[in-house]
Amino acid sequence: MLKIVVDAMGSDENPRPDVAGAVLAAREWGDTIVLVGDERLISAELAQHDTANLPIEVVHAPEAITMTDKPAVASRQKKQSSMHVGMNLVKAGSADAFVTAGNTGAVLAVATLHTLKRIRGIKRPALGVRFPVPNFPLLIDGGANADVKAEFLAQFGLMGSLYMEKVEGIANPKVGIISNGEEDGKGSLLVQEAFELLKELPINFIGSLEPKQFFGGAAHVGVTDGFTGNVMLKSAEAIARLLLGELRDAIYSSTRTKIGGLLARPAFDQVRAQMSSEQVGGAPLLGVNGIVIIGHGSSSAIAVKNAIGQARRAVQGNVLEAIRGVVIHESAG
Amino acid sequence: MLKIVVDAMGSDENPRPDVAGAVLAAREWGDTIVLVGDERLISAELAQHDTANLPIEVVHAPEAITMTDKPAVASRQKKQSSMHVGMNLVKAGSADAFVTAGNTGAVLAVATLHTLKRIRGIKRPALGVRFPVPNFPLLIDGGANADVKAEFLAQFGLMGSLYMEKVEGIANPKVGIISNGEEDGKGSLLVQEAFELLKELPINFIGSLEPKQFFGGAAHVGVTDGFTGNVMLKSAEAIARLLLGELRDAIYSSTRTKIGGLLARPAFDQVRAQMSSEQVGGAPLLGVNGIVIIGHGSSSAIAVKNAIGQARRAVQGNVLEAIRGVVIHESAG
Repeated sequence: MLKIVVDAMGSDENPRPDVAGAVLAAREWGDTIVLVGDERLISAELAQHDTANLPIEVVHAPEAITMTDKPAVASRQKKQSSMHVGMNLVKAGSADAFVTAGNTGAVLAVATLHTLKRIRGIKRPALGVRFPVPNFPLLIDGGANADVKAEFLAQFGLMGSLYMEKVEGIANPKVGIISNGEEDGKGSLLVQEAFELLKELPINFIGSLEPKQFFGGAAHVGVTDGFTGNVMLKSAEAIARLLLGELRDAIYSSTRTKIGGLLARPAFDQVRAQMSSEQVGGAPLLGVNGIVIIGHGSSSAIAVKNAIGQARRAVQGNVLEAIRGVVIHESAG
Repeated sequence: MLKIVVDAMGSDENPRPDVAGAVLAAREWGDTIVLVGDERLISAELAQHDTANLPIEVVHAPEAITMTDKPAVASRQKKQSSMHVGMNLVKAGSADAFVTAGNTGAVLAVATLHTLKRIRGIKRPALGVRFPVPNFPLLIDGGANADVKAEFLAQFGLMGSLYMEKVEGIANPKVGIISNGEEDGKGSLLVQEAFELLKELPINFIGSLEPKQFFGGAAHVGVTDGFTGNVMLKSAEAIARLLLGELRDAIYSSTRTKIGGLLARPAFDQVRAQMSSEQVGGAPLLGVNGIVIIGHGSSSAIAVKNAIGQARRAVQGNVLEAIRGVVIHESAG
């Protein structure tokens, strides 16, 4: 049985969805869930659920990092935060993975600088973000590193490929690099340099990916820097929301279309559910010495549960060992 | 009366939509339209329209640059292309503006390296792309420069602001820089450096813009490098298309939703029309010695006409003089 640490102080509505998601996960999979955070708040929240015989433990952490905290400052000053305490449990080998819906920048800083640290040989840990589009591709980096070098991008490709293979069970995942065109000579100098490095790696590198191809599911992994990746992620969310909002307004503008909209509502609900990040769970932080899954701040209980499910798969797939093995191999070769 | 050159060999379906759009523009505004390209093809196409008394001229160009031509090669080798001939008419002062729906990379190369050349003091010309979202903001650079320096970004902000003021009549346009977060310390090093330069310019700089804010219309101008800008543009197109496609599939999946979809169709048509690039016309190439408007390769006749309309406004707004004046002022200051 696994032991998974859940940050009870993570989400915007903490500790409600965080605790509720932990209860759902404990009930479904029977793994031990360790809730870390303010003990009194967690107990009060647990009392709202039927937790009889569920393998749930609580570990107190006197501090909590908020969404408005500055990551660099909070990760240095709040050493007793639920993030620090939780990741240190993983570091000590007392637990298998850490799941949080908290401040992404703070998770990165706490993991990379203060607790788990980088895997030896990994230049920069990166955030893998799966998109709810055809084939659920992974974009890496989704926002951890705004400034990168070509060799970092090559490692992102390697880690992303291993993740999709080991954790999601995709044989020989297709890896591409996000670019502004498919033709020769397109892409920034950085992308062109990384392209050459990716070609040499023991992965299924398929070349440049325009956004249309990435969102269309042409690859399982899209490699990019954390600035571009974050802008893509946020652009996609913004456009989807805008389009659905404009459709709603247009539908409400006449009686005929209003009736049509009512009848078509199941279709809208279906698409909204398909495109919801709730189904995806969370984003793995790859390249640190431990499994860390980061959920959206607005996570619901279901989203937290799914992030825990993702952490389970990452542990069972031995993705950490795989990354360590490849990096050593690459360094030696 | 203005004289506007239209590349008859530009669009994917050339010369049909290009010529048809020129006829529509000549009829609506009475400006002289100079169609440049294969004289026989243009004449045959013009014969399909009632052009009696319309101020349309034809200038022969023996070569044409295609969508599959490599920009750097074609712009150097096809010196008699419709792009070269057309832009040289503007350069010589025989016409006021050049409109094309052709190969964007080739337009950039022909304009910047072979015909109009950069405005003195402008580091890099850039593509301004207006988005069919609230407030129709301009993203600059939409794809001309994959690699930039902070000082280029500052000039993009200046040119974008002047364009929105002089051509679109927006007083004191709000200018922001695209970033991966609003907080201090967010953004790549490039963005942080450009931020400081933009603050010092005589424009209404409002700071960082996350994609959500840009697409929500929080600024009139979003400044970014051509790599990020192009990825944003293509991501937005891809997500909008994907979402509408999934909605259509979901609506077709049951009789109830199919009937709803039929009734709601006017709402879908309205949103599709609102979000169509047809309404926007084309993208100005800012920073070269002449008005150049670049339309989508898939332009319809209406899109070509609207691009010509945009060229007219750019001429009437004296945006070239404004850019020249500010650059001289900046260099002197």
